[in-house]
Amino acid sequence: MTVSHDLDLATLIADTEAEILRLVGDRGPSTRGVYEMVRYHLGLDGTGAPAGKRIRPLLGLLAYASIAGEHTRALPGAAAVELGHNFSLVHDDIEDGDRERRHRPTVWAVHGVAQAINTGDMLFSLSRMALHRLSDLGFSDAKVLRLMRLYDETCVALCEGQYIDIWTSEHDDAMSVELYFDMIGRKTASLIAASIEAGALLATDDEEVIRRYRAFGWALGIAFQLNDDLLGIWGHEQATGKEPTDVARKKKTLPVIYAFEHATPADRLRLAALYASNRPTSADVAEIVAILERCGARTFTRDEARRYRDEALTEIEAAGVVDGAARARLQEIIVSVISA
Amino acid sequence: MTVSHDLDLATLIADTEAEILRLVGDRGPSTRGVYEMVRYHLGLDGTGAPAGKRIRPLLGLLAYASIAGEHTRALPGAAAVELGHNFSLVHDDIEDGDRERRHRPTVWAVHGVAQAINTGDMLFSLSRMALHRLSDLGFSDAKVLRLMRLYDETCVALCEGQYIDIWTSEHDDAMSVELYFDMIGRKTASLIAASIEAGALLATDDEEVIRRYRAFGWALGIAFQLNDDLLGIWGHEQATGKEPTDVARKKKTLPVIYAFEHATPADRLRLAALYASNRPTSADVAEIVAILERCGARTFTRDEARRYRDEALTEIEAAGVVDGAARARLQEIIVSVISA
Repeated sequence: MTVSHDLDLATLIADTEAEILRLVGDRGPSTRGVYEMVRYHLGLDGTGAPAGKRIRPLLGLLAYASIAGEHTRALPGAAAVELGHNFSLVHDDIEDGDRERRHRPTVWAVHGVAQAINTGDMLFSLSRMALHRLSDLGFSDAKVLRLMRLYDETCVALCEGQYIDIWTSEHDDAMSVELYFDMIGRKTASLIAASIEAGALLATDDEEVIRRYRAFGWALGIAFQLNDDLLGIWGHEQATGKEPTDVARKKKTLPVIYAFEHATPADRLRLAALYASNRPTSADVAEIVAILERCGARTFTRDEARRYRDEALTEIEAAGVVDGAARARLQEIIVSVISA
Repeated sequence: MTVSHDLDLATLIADTEAEILRLVGDRGPSTRGVYEMVRYHLGLDGTGAPAGKRIRPLLGLLAYASIAGEHTRALPGAAAVELGHNFSLVHDDIEDGDRERRHRPTVWAVHGVAQAINTGDMLFSLSRMALHRLSDLGFSDAKVLRLMRLYDETCVALCEGQYIDIWTSEHDDAMSVELYFDMIGRKTASLIAASIEAGALLATDDEEVIRRYRAFGWALGIAFQLNDDLLGIWGHEQATGKEPTDVARKKKTLPVIYAFEHATPADRLRLAALYASNRPTSADVAEIVAILERCGARTFTRDEARRYRDEALTEIEAAGVVDGAARARLQEIIVSVISA
């Protein structure tokens, strides 16, 4: 069968970053500034700035390697996914008014809204350019086109999810548990599913395997988001490197939405009053968390996260991957990511 | 040879809009709002709102028809170009702080910056979806991929041009005649050149014809922008439907940039003082226009516009198109557009 290459995660990340750097270099003096902003946001400006975890390209490369036995030919797909994810982050930061990301000022906080919108658009454009190198690597035109269609459909879903996110943040009563799952499917699961599906479809023509990888990615994406929701309220800073600030920042993630639907009438009224206040005090935060625990919001969210994680594990096992090392890494990621 | 179909411009516009409407319809209750914003911006919300002139898709369809004798198979390309152009308009309106376009409030003025950024992203995503229908129409995968590469490279150029535009608007001394031509090449000419090149490459495999059509589109795009610059200062409202407000709005188009480089030292000082004032009075505007005339800025811009227009006409003639009706329409557009 295939020979397993080095599947050290640090190597996969370094290779992905090298692939991205091919695309984001300067192209002339008059336009240098926009590529500088792109590299700044990506944490690839040579300052040793903290970059993202590159979880999406990692998953795509491992999916590919678990079938094909090596990862290098899937690098253009990994670069596209990471650039596409970062386009959405640059725009999200403006839309949410977030001035900081990864312990550095966001692009709009440094360069203003106008340049930041355009820098996001550039990341979007460059993410497409990444895919064209698949042709140079010898993939058939039909395969490359299919990947592009997958990517394009995913971008539409991302924008749909973002629309729901903005709309519900502006309309207090609009969110529900059902709509939340609808939203995170489009906004989070679709891109993770696409990364993994892309890895699979570059590696094989077996439609059943591709279908199972996509299902695996989709379930993982939902589990990933719900886990994030749990950590944002009940995480430990020592373990995650982040303070659990979602309640203090009044972020309406699944546990809160669940409580607004399932808490006792008295608790719901109290919750509404607490969320209507400008900036919750630490006593308010403690009271909110107590309500969430009391109504079962934490248990519900944790059970859902585990259910989707187990669904992901089932799909990946049923797909019958051929490379044990890559599968082991995928399973490691799943188990470590879904920790809450 | 080929039979010339109906090349009535109104038909081409109606067919383009029908092609776009296939892509921008509702896809479900939870995401309806984002498609409503897309249709609102496009002037396709069924209210009879004024839409754009659809000049880019028209040029692409006529380029295709001038070689292939009919236009319908090029409609997905025309839809992509129009959607892509409109993505950039939605974002430009935010970046420039413009509250009105085509006599209606802009998307951000109605729905806020967050939703408007996302609506632009959606238009961008949908523009890619448009291209996939070329496969359904029987174009080869290689052809569709080549068109996508052209489109992706064009989007990169658009973002580069927009970067220069924002940067020079924020740095008073940064603009020059040379940089202005660099900027409008990326921001305006590249998309018009791509529309026309796309029309040609869908119609023929003759690389020489494709090359000439691109050169034609590029020259036309530059001429188009310079003509706009002239009309923005010396246009007549009766003829253009727009007041010439560029000087009052302190827009630094080619005539102004030329004057800052070529007027007498005394006039340059005066110009700088006038542009530094908050809102020019009508006496200020008259004085600025007099300086522009005096230093030859108007003549220079008009001569350049004509030179590029003539270059466009030369390229289209040299390409040896086969359909006389389409060529006549193209020539009509060129002559009518470059009117100043």
